[in-house]
Amino acid sequence: MDIRMHTLSDKVPEPTLRRLPWYLSNAKLMRDKGETYVSSTQISRQINIDASQVAKDLSYVKISGRTRVGYEINSLIEVLESFLGFTDMHKAFLFGVGSLGGALLRDTGLQQFGLEIVGAFDINPELVGTEINGIPIYHSDEFEAKMKEASVNIGVLTVPISIAQEITDKMVAGGIKAVWNFTPFRIRVPEDIVVQNTSLYAHLAVMFNRLNFNQK
Amino acid sequence: MDIRMHTLSDKVPEPTLRRLPWYLSNAKLMRDKGETYVSSTQISRQINIDASQVAKDLSYVKISGRTRVGYEINSLIEVLESFLGFTDMHKAFLFGVGSLGGALLRDTGLQQFGLEIVGAFDINPELVGTEINGIPIYHSDEFEAKMKEASVNIGVLTVPISIAQEITDKMVAGGIKAVWNFTPFRIRVPEDIVVQNTSLYAHLAVMFNRLNFNQK
Repeated sequence: MDIRMHTLSDKVPEPTLRRLPWYLSNAKLMRDKGETYVSSTQISRQINIDASQVAKDLSYVKISGRTRVGYEINSLIEVLESFLGFTDMHKAFLFGVGSLGGALLRDTGLQQFGLEIVGAFDINPELVGTEINGIPIYHSDEFEAKMKEASVNIGVLTVPISIAQEITDKMVAGGIKAVWNFTPFRIRVPEDIVVQNTSLYAHLAVMFNRLNFNQK
Repeated sequence: MDIRMHTLSDKVPEPTLRRLPWYLSNAKLMRDKGETYVSSTQISRQINIDASQVAKDLSYVKISGRTRVGYEINSLIEVLESFLGFTDMHKAFLFGVGSLGGALLRDTGLQQFGLEIVGAFDINPELVGTEINGIPIYHSDEFEAKMKEASVNIGVLTVPISIAQEITDKMVAGGIKAVWNFTPFRIRVPEDIVVQNTSLYAHLAVMFNRLNFNQK
């Protein structure tokens, strides 16, 4: 059973990319339970997603299953982690060491998924020159110089909304290629720049609304 | 111009709920610049979303604009904050004080958006009995007792994937009505329980993929 149908240059749909980490964590759980093979039907049953959808999603990944047996779990984990970019270390700078920015600097979990924040920028004199979790905090004016020293192409945006666009423009001018935007502000970037919006507050809004709806 | 078209009992579509915080932060910015009125056309232009979409989204919110002038900014901010649930304080418990859990306890920004974490649970003896940012950390066994003391209906899930389902089941049995799931694990809950998935790692996967795609 070789269900590979896509070439590597295909753009993977975002819903697929969001589901693949579910399959990955499921495979890790199965491995920890001592299993050696897993089929898309099993994954499907455990996480309640249509089996044909699981097979279709996995077809983007370079892995072949065996009829009736399924995927070898260790290979599946390895291939998924590599495909999702979790095995390469991607260097990033963080902009804005406020409450959320500081919290992200302290989250060592990001490193296990391929993101290494190598420096942070702020203008607060109490922060500049210090470090959090071993990550140095520089003055924002040093950004251009630091970009020349390190090969960084990801910027994590955790500034106040009033300067979100201004800092984004600076990042892009300095050579940042992808912005992980944690602000509730909709930033604008040139077409070739990747933006990933992760607004915790928008997620809260959805959760509160659903909760109120259920309680009516 | 009264564009209210929905009754309060309408279920607001998730994309709308995710866009409304953008309008809110835009309105705050305009207010800080000294503006008093804003039209959906202006919002539309600034955040690059179709004006008819903006008007449609805002029609879910109880606010009326005036022809040619638009919405009074202070009212718009007030109404949006209230509609999104940011002005009510929602109490929550956090489960799993690891790296991400600890980081969320330290993020005071959540309170400004209506989420107050009033306690956390873990089994690590080095953590139990201590507090982070003024939030007490209890042993997981104390959950049922603590639920009786406080009126909490939101659970923030930041445990390892191997126990994500087990802890979710416990939360639900204890009376939690909404789970904010930060794990990359797809948890299963009864139909009347709200789940909001916020997997930072899934967002990272999407960002890495797009970045690699652009760099080909």
